[in-house]
Amino acid sequence: MSSSKQIEPRTLPGFRDFLPETLRVRKKVIQIFSEIFEKYGFEPLETPTLEFQDILLGKYGEEAEKLMYLFKDNGGRDVGLRYDLTVPTARVIAQYPNLPKPFKRYQIQPTWRAEKPQKGRYREFTQCDIDTFGTGSPFADAEIIAIIQECFSKVGFKEFTIRINSRQVLFETMETAGVPEEKYLTAIQSIDKLDKKSTDDVQKELSEKGLPSKTITNIFSSLKSSRPNDNLKAIFAALKQFGIPEDFYKFDPVLSRGLDYYTGAIFETLVTEPKIGSISGGGRYDKLIGQFTGVDLPAVGTTIGLDRTVDVITELNLWPDAPKTTVKALITIFSSVLLEKSFKIYSLCRQNNIPIEIYLDPEAKLDKQLKYADQKGIPFAVIIGPDEAAKNLVTVKNLRLKEQKTIPEAELLDQIRP
Amino acid sequence: MSSSKQIEPRTLPGFRDFLPETLRVRKKVIQIFSEIFEKYGFEPLETPTLEFQDILLGKYGEEAEKLMYLFKDNGGRDVGLRYDLTVPTARVIAQYPNLPKPFKRYQIQPTWRAEKPQKGRYREFTQCDIDTFGTGSPFADAEIIAIIQECFSKVGFKEFTIRINSRQVLFETMETAGVPEEKYLTAIQSIDKLDKKSTDDVQKELSEKGLPSKTITNIFSSLKSSRPNDNLKAIFAALKQFGIPEDFYKFDPVLSRGLDYYTGAIFETLVTEPKIGSISGGGRYDKLIGQFTGVDLPAVGTTIGLDRTVDVITELNLWPDAPKTTVKALITIFSSVLLEKSFKIYSLCRQNNIPIEIYLDPEAKLDKQLKYADQKGIPFAVIIGPDEAAKNLVTVKNLRLKEQKTIPEAELLDQIRP
Repeated sequence: MSSSKQIEPRTLPGFRDFLPETLRVRKKVIQIFSEIFEKYGFEPLETPTLEFQDILLGKYGEEAEKLMYLFKDNGGRDVGLRYDLTVPTARVIAQYPNLPKPFKRYQIQPTWRAEKPQKGRYREFTQCDIDTFGTGSPFADAEIIAIIQECFSKVGFKEFTIRINSRQVLFETMETAGVPEEKYLTAIQSIDKLDKKSTDDVQKELSEKGLPSKTITNIFSSLKSSRPNDNLKAIFAALKQFGIPEDFYKFDPVLSRGLDYYTGAIFETLVTEPKIGSISGGGRYDKLIGQFTGVDLPAVGTTIGLDRTVDVITELNLWPDAPKTTVKALITIFSSVLLEKSFKIYSLCRQNNIPIEIYLDPEAKLDKQLKYADQKGIPFAVIIGPDEAAKNLVTVKNLRLKEQKTIPEAELLDQIRP
Repeated sequence: MSSSKQIEPRTLPGFRDFLPETLRVRKKVIQIFSEIFEKYGFEPLETPTLEFQDILLGKYGEEAEKLMYLFKDNGGRDVGLRYDLTVPTARVIAQYPNLPKPFKRYQIQPTWRAEKPQKGRYREFTQCDIDTFGTGSPFADAEIIAIIQECFSKVGFKEFTIRINSRQVLFETMETAGVPEEKYLTAIQSIDKLDKKSTDDVQKELSEKGLPSKTITNIFSSLKSSRPNDNLKAIFAALKQFGIPEDFYKFDPVLSRGLDYYTGAIFETLVTEPKIGSISGGGRYDKLIGQFTGVDLPAVGTTIGLDRTVDVITELNLWPDAPKTTVKALITIFSSVLLEKSFKIYSLCRQNNIPIEIYLDPEAKLDKQLKYADQKGIPFAVIIGPDEAAKNLVTVKNLRLKEQKTIPEAELLDQIRP
C-alpha cells in the first residue's frame, strides 16, 4: 500500500491508449503502407508536433481553425499542435529550397483536432500522407491515386471507391450557379457535407451563409450536369497507364473536400462497408507553398487515415489469423536449483536466433508460468524438471494443441523453429 | 507568384524536421530495437500525446515539472504533453487491471521537455522504452540490462558502459552521511549532475539546498565507500545467466538518475565517444502505480534515447553504406509518343515486385530525368528511345559506374533485380 492521495487513471475524451492487440494491427498497416510508398520512390519525412501558429493559420479554413489545439509555450510563443501533415510539409518544402524536385515524400504521424468524439472520429489520429512536389503533371495525380488503390487492396479491402473531382470543376459550377467568387470556398465546405447531412440540411446551411435560394437551386442542378475537365480527363487516361482497374475509381461531381488549400483535382475513398466516412482524402494544392515563399510550386497528395483503415480491418475481421506474438516458446524455470539448466537452453535458442522468452521469476509455480505463455499466445512452453535435466531432455508442451512430448535437448530447435 | 503576405518558414527552437536521409537512419534504429524488444517477448503499447495534468504532476520532481508543456484545452481541461513514457504507461497499468502479469511492453514515441536546446538535447525527442510490470525478480532487472546491451551492440556501438547503482544504496549513503530523509531526493538530484558539473558546483548546489558542509563532505566520502547491496548482487548474478560480457556493465556508486520515482536498481548507458551524455536511463520504480491504484506493483524498465543513438551512429559514421532508396531503377520517358512503351516496362517490373519509379513528367528532358535518379541514389535508369522501342530493347544506365548497355527487354528484370 502506498500513496495517500490517489489519482484516477483515465484518458482525455477522444484520446486513446493502444494496447498490444490493436497496436499490432496498426503497426502492420503502417509497415504495409510504408513499403508501398517506398516502392514508388516516396521518401520518409517527419515534422515537429508543435509549429508556430502563423505556419498553421490561414490555410485550412475557418471551421478547421476552431478545432486546433493552440496555446502559448513556456517562452511565450504562440504555438499549435499539427492539424494535418500537408501544411507542415509545405513549410518544409519552402524552408529547404534545395530539395531535388520532383520531391516525393511520405509521412506517417499523429495529428490533433478537437472534434466532437464519435465513431471513426478521434481527437488524436494518425495520418499516412504521400505528396509529390514540383510537378503539375497529371501523372503525379494518377500515381497518388494508384498508390491509394494499392494500399487498400493490400490490406484486404475488397469494395471501395476512389471518388475524383476537381476544384476547377466545382469553381465553374459555382460560377454557373451565380455564387459570388468570395463565397466559393464556404459554399464548397457545405457541399462537402452532402455525404453526411441531408440535401435539406446542406441547403439550409448555404442559405445561412447568405446565398439566395435561386442560387442554391442552381448549384444543385449544375452539380448534376458537371463533367470532367481536360485535367481530369488527363488524370483518368494516366490511371489507365498505371493499370488501375476502373471499378476502383469514378468521377463524382459532388465531391468537394473541406479544406481551403486545394486548387485542382481532389479525391477521397469510401468503403462500401462499414459506414465510416472517407478513409483517404487529398488533391492538388498548387498555391500553398507560395504562402511561404511567394512563389507557387505545384503539389499533389493524399492522406490515408490509419485509424479508419484499422477500424475497417477490425470490423470486417479481415486479418483473423494475425499472430499475437513473435515469441516461439517460453522457457519455464522449474526451480532455483535448475535455473542454470533453463538458462542454458534459453541461450542456445537465442544463439540460433529463435525469438524466445524465459520466465523471469524462478519462485513462480509451473502452472502460473504456463498460464502466462498461454495468455500471451506463445505457441510452446519448454519444461526442464529434474528428470529431464538428469538425461539432457526437455519437455515441449504445445499450448494450442494441449499436448506434450519429451525429447533430447538437441532436437528442441527443430521443434520450435519458426 | 501568389500570396500578398508571406510567412517565414521556420521551426520552433529545439524542434526538428527529419529529412529523408536522417529519418532513414532513425527508422532503421527503431526497426532494430523493435525486433529485439519483440524477440524478448515485449509487446507494443502507445499512449496519447496529451494527458490530464494530474496524471503527469507529482511523479518526476520539481525540476522536471518546470520543463513540462502544460496548457488548457478548448474544453477548459488542464492538459500536458507527455514528459516521458513511464508515467503514462503506469497510468495504463492502473487503468486496465486485467492485463496479464508479468506485463512486458515496449513503447517508442516522442516526448517533450522545454529544456535549453543544446547538443544532444532537444525539446521534442523520441524515447524507446521497455518495462516489465508485476515482478520484483532481479531477473526482470537483468533482462532489461541484457536488452540494452543487445540494442547498442546491434546498432554497431563498440565501446559503451552500462552503469548500475541502486536508490537503496544511495538512500543508505544519505543516511550514513546524516542527510535528513525529506532531503534524500533533492540531494540525489544534485549528485546526478556529477557527470556534467564539477564536484565544486555540485557541493555548492547541495549547500544551497540547505545541507551543512560537514554533511556534504560525508556524502562524498560515503559515496566512495559504498558497495552493491544484496539486490544488486542478485542482478549481477542474473546478468551472468543472461550471458552479458562483463566489459559492458559496472557498479557505479555515483550514478543517481534525476527522476523521483525510482525505488531500487537504477542504470544508465554512456558511450566512450562522442561525449553526448547518457543514451539510456532507467531503473526500478515499485511505487509509481500505487499512486493511481493505492496498491503498489513492482516495475522496472529503461528508456533508450533514439535521438542520441542516431547522433552517435552519425558522428562515428557507423553505417557508411546505408542505401538512400529502395527503388532499383527509374524508368525514363523519352517522349509522349513512347509513353506507353515506358509504362509497359514499368508495369512489368512492378508485377515482378521490383521497387521502381517512372518519371512523372513526359515533357521533361532526359538529362533532367537522369539527374533526378542520380540525386535520389537510384542505381539504374532505363531508357527506351525510338531505336530501342522498335526492336524491343532497353538501355540500362548504371548511374554509379556511369556506364550503359542496351539489352533485350526480357533481360531487364535480371539486370536490376535486388
